[in-house]
Amino acid sequence: MTQINRRSLLAGSALAAAALPVAALAKAPPAGKQAAGLYRYKLGDYEMTALYDGVWNRAIDDKFVRNVAFPQVQQALADSFLPTDKLPIPFTTLLVNTGARLVLLDTGTAGQIPGAASGSMPENLAAAGIAPAAIDTIVISHFHPDHINGIKTKDDELVFPNAEILVPAPEWAYWMDDAKLSTAPQALKGNFLNVRRVFKNVKVQQFEPGKEVAPGVTSIAAYGHTPGHTAFAVASGSQSMLVLSDVTSHPWLFLRNPEWQPAFDMDGSLAVDTRKHLLDRAAADRMLVQGYHFPFPASGHVTKSGANYDFVPVMWQLAI
Amino acid sequence: MTQINRRSLLAGSALAAAALPVAALAKAPPAGKQAAGLYRYKLGDYEMTALYDGVWNRAIDDKFVRNVAFPQVQQALADSFLPTDKLPIPFTTLLVNTGARLVLLDTGTAGQIPGAASGSMPENLAAAGIAPAAIDTIVISHFHPDHINGIKTKDDELVFPNAEILVPAPEWAYWMDDAKLSTAPQALKGNFLNVRRVFKNVKVQQFEPGKEVAPGVTSIAAYGHTPGHTAFAVASGSQSMLVLSDVTSHPWLFLRNPEWQPAFDMDGSLAVDTRKHLLDRAAADRMLVQGYHFPFPASGHVTKSGANYDFVPVMWQLAI
Repeated sequence: MTQINRRSLLAGSALAAAALPVAALAKAPPAGKQAAGLYRYKLGDYEMTALYDGVWNRAIDDKFVRNVAFPQVQQALADSFLPTDKLPIPFTTLLVNTGARLVLLDTGTAGQIPGAASGSMPENLAAAGIAPAAIDTIVISHFHPDHINGIKTKDDELVFPNAEILVPAPEWAYWMDDAKLSTAPQALKGNFLNVRRVFKNVKVQQFEPGKEVAPGVTSIAAYGHTPGHTAFAVASGSQSMLVLSDVTSHPWLFLRNPEWQPAFDMDGSLAVDTRKHLLDRAAADRMLVQGYHFPFPASGHVTKSGANYDFVPVMWQLAI
Repeated sequence: MTQINRRSLLAGSALAAAALPVAALAKAPPAGKQAAGLYRYKLGDYEMTALYDGVWNRAIDDKFVRNVAFPQVQQALADSFLPTDKLPIPFTTLLVNTGARLVLLDTGTAGQIPGAASGSMPENLAAAGIAPAAIDTIVISHFHPDHINGIKTKDDELVFPNAEILVPAPEWAYWMDDAKLSTAPQALKGNFLNVRRVFKNVKVQQFEPGKEVAPGVTSIAAYGHTPGHTAFAVASGSQSMLVLSDVTSHPWLFLRNPEWQPAFDMDGSLAVDTRKHLLDRAAADRMLVQGYHFPFPASGHVTKSGANYDFVPVMWQLAI
């Protein structure tokens, strides 16, 4: 059998390059861009569409996971073929077409996360053949900018002009509390102000977690990541699934190590409890899950082995 | 925290359905179909496009893996959230745009696998903006129908009219040998005849595995799956990758259990040796791999733990 290694491959490549005719061009130029990031599946009578918004390659250091030494985090990143000095954090929103209503769970970034290569959700929605004006309902999981900034353009225009906007009541209570803003640590103040910017002159309806927020979409209190962070169960016909929101960020890190407390989680200990509770349920019931920061299409199943979990991505289907 | 389970989800759904206005329809109808299956990435100066051709949900029984009891196979399927009575076998071809040439590695099924939901590669090629006539070179890994049938339509027209077609010499020698056809077991005769149908009146060039077959694309003898089965190394600039062809079929089964001998592998023992040799290399060098029967986009990395391997799917990138 031919022995291959990097050296022989590169030698082969150099030879090939030398032999290339100079002026020849392929009959199709390189596209230079990624294909549309949308993925559809059925849940009972509902049609679900995962819409990719992009990725934030966030620089990380020894403060990124509070309760674990950084080399251990870097090893987990290397084991997952990810860079060890930054975490690629993808964003994927989920659109539920109930047949009667278009319900969007979180809105993406609108390209308003400094340093992130994101904001492609509206483009992917267009590729799915859906106009922003067709969205009936937006349901927000929590008030971090990558989940709410897509509500408005940079010029404060509503992106989805006809959509009612539903937000978790405890999330609203926390971030709109001027007393909490005034005593917040400096690192949090920006988020308080961003929440105020996004929701200024915007009509919202608050919901209590545990209630149904749209037909077949039930909110689930999942506190810890933020004070009012909410997951969702979606059910149609005999099928149901769990939308994890930010119960866990990148699965290769935080499903495999559910005790790790990322700096994103405002109450790290409560977030660990929430994570284990919902992941136990997902694993035991073999439920389909969708994770906002899971690799696109961000859909799959959770397994449990001992005290840890793992993620089995869904197989891309040809028909839905 | 709200307790959720299947029963409460379904109850919620039933209530929701009862409350729905009867005549209301969403402003966008369900699409009813999957999004285009194409995924682009850069390898040095080359632009790679993974093109999804579909999936064959192949019924399996205790003959499917020769050297393992069927319940063990079924457990591995269940652990991967796959059905236990059939294996979903996806097909993904790989297009290499070198800038000067469009090189297609294997051709998909052309919808000519009875019972398979496949043949979407040309549609996805069109979605990528590439005409079939633009393909300069087709390189075939081996002569199973899901790899060669895409060369011709059912009416024996060439699908890629301008492409030169390169095939492994040992594969040609085996399947075109009338003596081997006449003594072949009944189950293999159909494949001998299909090979003759596909290549009838088609001009091909044979290559010896180990040779460069297109600029930067080097063939690698990977015998066992078939007598002349071939993998490929692709290199451009400082980057290289390994195209596994059918060195391993579904990774959740045969990367995790490299000693398992699927009925597809004509020489099961030799195929195991080849599998371990190439997977060892891929894991040690942390090479990007593409697997023809891996879940779309069929691209990622191989890890090794003890005697077994695992697959880490690539993270979908927004920019390429």
